[in-house]
Amino acid sequence: MTRNAPLSLYGDRFWISPYVFSCYVALCEKGLEFQMVELALDRREQRRPEYLDRAVTGKVPALAHGHFWLTESSAIIEYLEEAFPEHARVLPADLEERARVRQVMAFLRSDLVVLREERPTTTMFYARAGSPLSAAGRAAVEKLFHVAGALLAGGKSLLASSWSIADADLAFMLHRLILNGDEVPAPLRAYAEAQWRRPSIRSYVERTRPPYVPY
Amino acid sequence: MTRNAPLSLYGDRFWISPYVFSCYVALCEKGLEFQMVELALDRREQRRPEYLDRAVTGKVPALAHGHFWLTESSAIIEYLEEAFPEHARVLPADLEERARVRQVMAFLRSDLVVLREERPTTTMFYARAGSPLSAAGRAAVEKLFHVAGALLAGGKSLLASSWSIADADLAFMLHRLILNGDEVPAPLRAYAEAQWRRPSIRSYVERTRPPYVPY
Repeated sequence: MTRNAPLSLYGDRFWISPYVFSCYVALCEKGLEFQMVELALDRREQRRPEYLDRAVTGKVPALAHGHFWLTESSAIIEYLEEAFPEHARVLPADLEERARVRQVMAFLRSDLVVLREERPTTTMFYARAGSPLSAAGRAAVEKLFHVAGALLAGGKSLLASSWSIADADLAFMLHRLILNGDEVPAPLRAYAEAQWRRPSIRSYVERTRPPYVPY
Repeated sequence: MTRNAPLSLYGDRFWISPYVFSCYVALCEKGLEFQMVELALDRREQRRPEYLDRAVTGKVPALAHGHFWLTESSAIIEYLEEAFPEHARVLPADLEERARVRQVMAFLRSDLVVLREERPTTTMFYARAGSPLSAAGRAAVEKLFHVAGALLAGGKSLLASSWSIADADLAFMLHRLILNGDEVPAPLRAYAEAQWRRPSIRSYVERTRPPYVPY
């Protein structure tokens, strides 16, 4: 694979996937040129054979780097970091810091299921949530606050000694609550709102979106 | 952190976590000496302050390497690979192969939720599942077969050109079905059963377990 083959990121046309968000921000922060390809998940375009044959899990995001295709956002981010070492880092250079950042990325992708269900990303970019959090939803929120609070203890403004993609991921998760008017401890809110002002993140968040079609 | 500080892996006393399994197999395959610490999740030992203060997500697995603590199995595996580069690899050396293996690891950890719920790991090591798969369960199984079939197409016996920890993870997922008598295509069954004969995997799977206490 030649390193300067074209890069394409496949995302959803409503720009609501937290995992496309993560890859998009990583590509921007690394200063890589890429083409964004929007799929209509509401028309099941990700199930078309020409996509499914290349993006093996049939989901977004997918990254195409020349002929090489890859899905799963954490795998895409690790690949970008390794394939383009001369570009800005999105994972810390220090071994232990890098491990802790991966811990956050894995936690946000595998846990907090009820929070993700009760505050789906549609409620961040389209109509706000109509119901307060359930007891299970509040328990997930408490878990998020415990983990985020521990990792940012002492007034830290970043998870590691320099910015990493996990800061974008964590700010995105916290904004599920912030944008829906749910209570968020002031230090966590300040952390997430500072991240939200980052140009790479604004470029994803502030995009003009088409009317939402449930799917 | 000195590289020869002692390693401890925190797991559950019933030895049923697929994520502890993955870290355990990685430690064995790398030939690292480690102490196994069994927590009684049924007595909520993972919520004790002395654990929660170190293992920030309050879950198993956790790895302690001297004073450095880490949770989330994929982060633990990446850490072991980077901290002990002179030991056997559990991720491929080739950039694209390594990316595809991470894709499988992330897919198995974040997708197939209904399959994991209807064929929980208790049904692998204790009483078998009492009900056939639901329609949603069967859809998840078809997705698993599509992904595994595509990645092992052409009669491959491994996901990459050499063994990787994703082979253990995928074999574990397939055994949720095999051990419950659910249908699995012959090539995938043969792949998973070959993995099941690997000494590192047998050492986890064939352990004598205490009577199960639901939690």
